Amino acid sequence: MRRVAVIGVGMTAFGKFPDRSLKDLAREALLAALGDAGVRPKAVGEAYCGNSLAGLLTGQESIRGQVLLREAGLAGLPVVNVENACASGSTAFRGAWLAVGSGQADVAVALGVEKMFVGDTARVLQALTTATDLEVEGAMGVFFPSLYAMRLRRHMEEFGVTKAQLALAAVKSHRNGALNPLAQFREPVTVDGVLASAVIVEPLHLKMCSAIGDGAAAAVLCAAAHARRFTGPPIRVAASVLRSGAITDLSGRSSAPDGAGRAIERAARAAYEAAGLGPGDVEVAEVHDAFAPGEILLSEDLGFCRRGEGVRLLEDGATAIGGRIPLNPSGGLTARGHPVGATGLAQIAEIVWQLREEAGARQTGKPQVGLVQNAGGNVGGDSAAQAIHILVR
Amino acid sequence: MRRVAVIGVGMTAFGKFPDRSLKDLAREALLAALGDAGVRPKAVGEAYCGNSLAGLLTGQESIRGQVLLREAGLAGLPVVNVENACASGSTAFRGAWLAVGSGQADVAVALGVEKMFVGDTARVLQALTTATDLEVEGAMGVFFPSLYAMRLRRHMEEFGVTKAQLALAAVKSHRNGALNPLAQFREPVTVDGVLASAVIVEPLHLKMCSAIGDGAAAAVLCAAAHARRFTGPPIRVAASVLRSGAITDLSGRSSAPDGAGRAIERAARAAYEAAGLGPGDVEVAEVHDAFAPGEILLSEDLGFCRRGEGVRLLEDGATAIGGRIPLNPSGGLTARGHPVGATGLAQIAEIVWQLREEAGARQTGKPQVGLVQNAGGNVGGDSAAQAIHILVR
Repeated sequence: MRRVAVIGVGMTAFGKFPDRSLKDLAREALLAALGDAGVRPKAVGEAYCGNSLAGLLTGQESIRGQVLLREAGLAGLPVVNVENACASGSTAFRGAWLAVGSGQADVAVALGVEKMFVGDTARVLQALTTATDLEVEGAMGVFFPSLYAMRLRRHMEEFGVTKAQLALAAVKSHRNGALNPLAQFREPVTVDGVLASAVIVEPLHLKMCSAIGDGAAAAVLCAAAHARRFTGPPIRVAASVLRSGAITDLSGRSSAPDGAGRAIERAARAAYEAAGLGPGDVEVAEVHDAFAPGEILLSEDLGFCRRGEGVRLLEDGATAIGGRIPLNPSGGLTARGHPVGATGLAQIAEIVWQLREEAGARQTGKPQVGLVQNAGGNVGGDSAAQAIHILVR
Repeated sequence: MRRVAVIGVGMTAFGKFPDRSLKDLAREALLAALGDAGVRPKAVGEAYCGNSLAGLLTGQESIRGQVLLREAGLAGLPVVNVENACASGSTAFRGAWLAVGSGQADVAVALGVEKMFVGDTARVLQALTTATDLEVEGAMGVFFPSLYAMRLRRHMEEFGVTKAQLALAAVKSHRNGALNPLAQFREPVTVDGVLASAVIVEPLHLKMCSAIGDGAAAAVLCAAAHARRFTGPPIRVAASVLRSGAITDLSGRSSAPDGAGRAIERAARAAYEAAGLGPGDVEVAEVHDAFAPGEILLSEDLGFCRRGEGVRLLEDGATAIGGRIPLNPSGGLTARGHPVGATGLAQIAEIVWQLREEAGARQTGKPQVGLVQNAGGNVGGDSAAQAIHILVR
């Protein structure tokens, strides 16, 4: 594998856009990323499209990428449509990284796109259940809000965490989102405001949850050795790791090739090892807070603090912009928005902007190392996909 | 890229199986391929799942691979769900090839699986239209039988080909299918029998068409240098190429990075170049005959004969088992069957068996070089995906 750099990123605003189609969203993000990189469409050797729900929500299944990439003049090249539920965007990014790293392409593009707002909430929720094993979680009616809620209740019980403390995560997310012109939600909220919003599943209130939204994000990658040919300041991909939940038998043996642990733990271990870095080196991160308090657990899973200390990290302001390890300066899934297939690439875009010191009002100092964690789906009590990328200036 | 070998293949019988689920089909193909290779699930470092229609037909979208691979004990590893309409299986195979070739994994698995028989033909046909741009071909009501029919009528006009000659392709496919215990259709048919079957779209009759079917196929790949550790006789992947249809502007300029030509022409050129071989070196091929007479055009596109001579190649018996360049000894899509996402890997399995001289009654001599061509979808008047693999004993 040769070294790979991100040389361009772009994204649409996230939100509910009744008048915008998948094509329209994809075109804007792709042209922004290509423009950022200074790359002509014909120079792109391979493209990956991450999308989760178009087949079920807009009807366009099977060749989504080919249909969408043409909107930016990307046609004729190898196109791979990838899907990994909420981690589809990161999976597309990893595909582009592999295409460039292996030498198959000198320049590759990753697109993540989702059109969720189709005016039918029940149908959207039904589509989202396909990110579980329909014969297991689906049949039990266990869905993502309840899966997060169960984990959080266990954490509250184990470490004496209160609902007001959980609400602080939402307060931080919305505070950051208010600084992000591309965020779906730009209104700050207080702890009281969070707790006054409707209960979705105890202990999750409405303002702790990500919402239905539309959006697209894209990245252009190239061989690091060639990066200076293009206009985008190159950001190196120091680790690109994907893992799925393992089967653990009664004697504790894991089916995972890399041993025991949940998918996120194994993914983090592999990513830090690949980058030759540790959690203490990470200066800014975008993490998968489909529900804001999930960030508390993620800060522990990723090693930014010890088990049980995630709440203190949050309360101390260490995860705020200006703190020791700012998490989700973009507002995260909760406030920037979570158009499923676009999320992973929006996270990448945010970290690229942070490392380039182009994040405007939400800039977190002068970070050299950023991390992106993007999760997708649920199977056998663990994530179906955990994608972790480490980017270095 | 390091050299990559296929060390195991497996597939289910193809057909209409009302009692078999996606999981059931996937398990059989995966266990067969792993068993063939002598590979334990835990030794697999990365997996790709190709499927096209499960979200629309069975409901299982988003994380199909994670749900299905667990059935064979494959859990914990990186799993990528890929989709490219009828070329989903080959796209999965190419992903596994890239994972191994790049050094990310020492062993990788590709699964192709489709459950089309859900007792509702209208719904299946509707799902298949998603392999076009729904706002273009979809809105015009132009669908695959009519797309093939238009190309064939042009060819008939240009080269003076008759319907009876087209029917010969179906006769050959069904003759080969009758020799294949895994084929969906195992009854030989005559030219009169083909022409007596219902007209679908002139000049296509029912017995020239592939049908709704269920099935799965899988392959295990590893670094060629390690292939001898495993039990399956290694078959080297000499070329793995994917292309999509380009946009050609009014002055004839193509958007494709590799110049002018339809996707299949560019893919074939690139594949022969990568393998350091020419069409004259290919001794057996599986080609994408979703409609049997399509094989006539494909034999020209792939360079097995000159333009306009495909019919003569067929009439002379050159493409029959025992001929100079046997095409679709398995029976092809028309007779072996075409469960969309499984097809590309079933084609790979057939060529691996042919190169190993394990194809039983349909063995085509002692071939050293085989080719697999798998097409998917339609966009802008060309294929959305053309995947060509060249395998060498």
